[in-house]
Amino acid sequence: MKKIINNPNDVVSEMLEGFARGNPKIIYFPEFAVISRKEKKRKVGLVSGGGSGHEPAHAGYVGKGMLDAAVAGNVFSSPGPDRIIKGIKEANNGEGVLLIIKNYAGDIMNFELAKELAEMEDVQIEYVIVKDDVAVPDSTYSTGRRGIAGTVFVHKIAGAKAEAGGTLEEVKKVAQQTIDNIRSMGMSMSPCILPNVGKPAFELAENIMEIGMGIHGEPGVEKTEIGNASKIAEVLTNRILEDMDFIGSEVALMVNGLGGTPLMELYILNNEVSKILDSKNIKIHRTFVGNYMTSLEMSGASVTLLKLNDELKELLDAPSDAPSFHV
Amino acid sequence: MKKIINNPNDVVSEMLEGFARGNPKIIYFPEFAVISRKEKKRKVGLVSGGGSGHEPAHAGYVGKGMLDAAVAGNVFSSPGPDRIIKGIKEANNGEGVLLIIKNYAGDIMNFELAKELAEMEDVQIEYVIVKDDVAVPDSTYSTGRRGIAGTVFVHKIAGAKAEAGGTLEEVKKVAQQTIDNIRSMGMSMSPCILPNVGKPAFELAENIMEIGMGIHGEPGVEKTEIGNASKIAEVLTNRILEDMDFIGSEVALMVNGLGGTPLMELYILNNEVSKILDSKNIKIHRTFVGNYMTSLEMSGASVTLLKLNDELKELLDAPSDAPSFHV
Repeated sequence: MKKIINNPNDVVSEMLEGFARGNPKIIYFPEFAVISRKEKKRKVGLVSGGGSGHEPAHAGYVGKGMLDAAVAGNVFSSPGPDRIIKGIKEANNGEGVLLIIKNYAGDIMNFELAKELAEMEDVQIEYVIVKDDVAVPDSTYSTGRRGIAGTVFVHKIAGAKAEAGGTLEEVKKVAQQTIDNIRSMGMSMSPCILPNVGKPAFELAENIMEIGMGIHGEPGVEKTEIGNASKIAEVLTNRILEDMDFIGSEVALMVNGLGGTPLMELYILNNEVSKILDSKNIKIHRTFVGNYMTSLEMSGASVTLLKLNDELKELLDAPSDAPSFHV
Repeated sequence: MKKIINNPNDVVSEMLEGFARGNPKIIYFPEFAVISRKEKKRKVGLVSGGGSGHEPAHAGYVGKGMLDAAVAGNVFSSPGPDRIIKGIKEANNGEGVLLIIKNYAGDIMNFELAKELAEMEDVQIEYVIVKDDVAVPDSTYSTGRRGIAGTVFVHKIAGAKAEAGGTLEEVKKVAQQTIDNIRSMGMSMSPCILPNVGKPAFELAENIMEIGMGIHGEPGVEKTEIGNASKIAEVLTNRILEDMDFIGSEVALMVNGLGGTPLMELYILNNEVSKILDSKNIKIHRTFVGNYMTSLEMSGASVTLLKLNDELKELLDAPSDAPSFHV
């Protein structure tokens, strides 16, 4: 297995330790797999998390103007409620806590349970569920659409609102509005390898890609011959545009790599997607190209569009010092 | 070939176009494959570049406090002098221009030629040559050590000095001092595929890694069984420490991914390298983990140490708005 790891069972704890080293602005709680902001401030606290293997999600988004705590599960596996409660406690500064959950059954179960348990200790908690992936209506691990790269925009915008002093109700409202305005669609060309399995999670023949594959290797829409970048951009973007009317709007665009795809290819894909948006009178306010929500070493990419209004734009553009998101 | 590209001959121009879209602070000159800063300021101009395939190097380092222009060649192929002259002209704001060249024969030939031609037009030009890779004394494409990921520290520190108003002589001096204080060492586990070749550039059996491989797939020191992260960290770090005395010093540490290695593994490697440095009384002032100098989709990583003094520390920590380097 071609990985830079030690014992496959230790990848999450060693990764978090490696993340924490050299990040003076965070605190790492090894027994809970929680990363939290060191600086405390009286404001709404934001917590997200989920299975590991999607780095820099979610620890890389802990920082001023984004998350207050990130909770890691094992690879592709939801964190238990005890870990999430620790994240909630670290994020709680007396103004309530918002949980940002990707729509997977395990995450919802564990985050909801943690919410109930934390409420018994009088923490005020709300949550939102991100379901931005237009590929499939239901999936292997979710009832309803999956939450993928668009989640990062929710972290950013809700984080900026909380930093600006929004109430829990206001932060939840803008987070939900962001979720309602996001659509994503991805494709993959080669599999990831789970460290404790040691073999590729699936196989795709040399000339085949899978459209709409999930970030855990879940089935997508179809396996098809690999097209060129122009064709891939068209397939992903059109699917998004068929799902929601973006014509005439201003958007934030994210071209996200799944882990094993080099930046060169993401820029080429961005070029093609941007040309399509230009041709359809969709104005790109800001572009994000890079690895934001990955799937270990899977190759492939996803496209995310967020429809903006004045408030969302201002919140997206607000400063943040999270290590893996830069405006 | 599993790549998100169109015509393999167009990857560089389409990548630069995709980079330029969504980067309002830069100007792209398609006919010269040059990316330059939009904002002009009376200061020493910095130019770097080289073959493409190492993204985000070098375009991602154009910005305030770093490079003024980046010049791209074809994949793994030096840019011609006409392109470099264009980069020099764009970077020239009347205070002279410093060229930062990675030590490869093609780059040196073309940058030197461009320097001579630009000097005829009365531009004051100096250059420095980065040779940070301790793996091999000479290599396939270089007389003397190769320039690899440490180059990014030279961009940052020389860029900060220029931004602060240093003269050409001063900027060159601090760039050279940085070069003298940098050592890097890498390893690879799987090959890259050149777009216009379509086949892996080399082969490594399932259990084999190559220590000291270059960023163009050039031979390294030895092929050996893949060790765990702890062992890999030890091999890379010890080689660096044998080459230069870092004991008792403060350093900047870069754990650089070669393109196809996920962030999870880079953090695990960072953990191991940091532990070794701690144990040897080498103080880490700042840590950089990510894809800074890649080799298309090659998997593997390199470790870079930069020995700091007060001035280098201050320059490293100075602000920059280059899209791919964040302090």
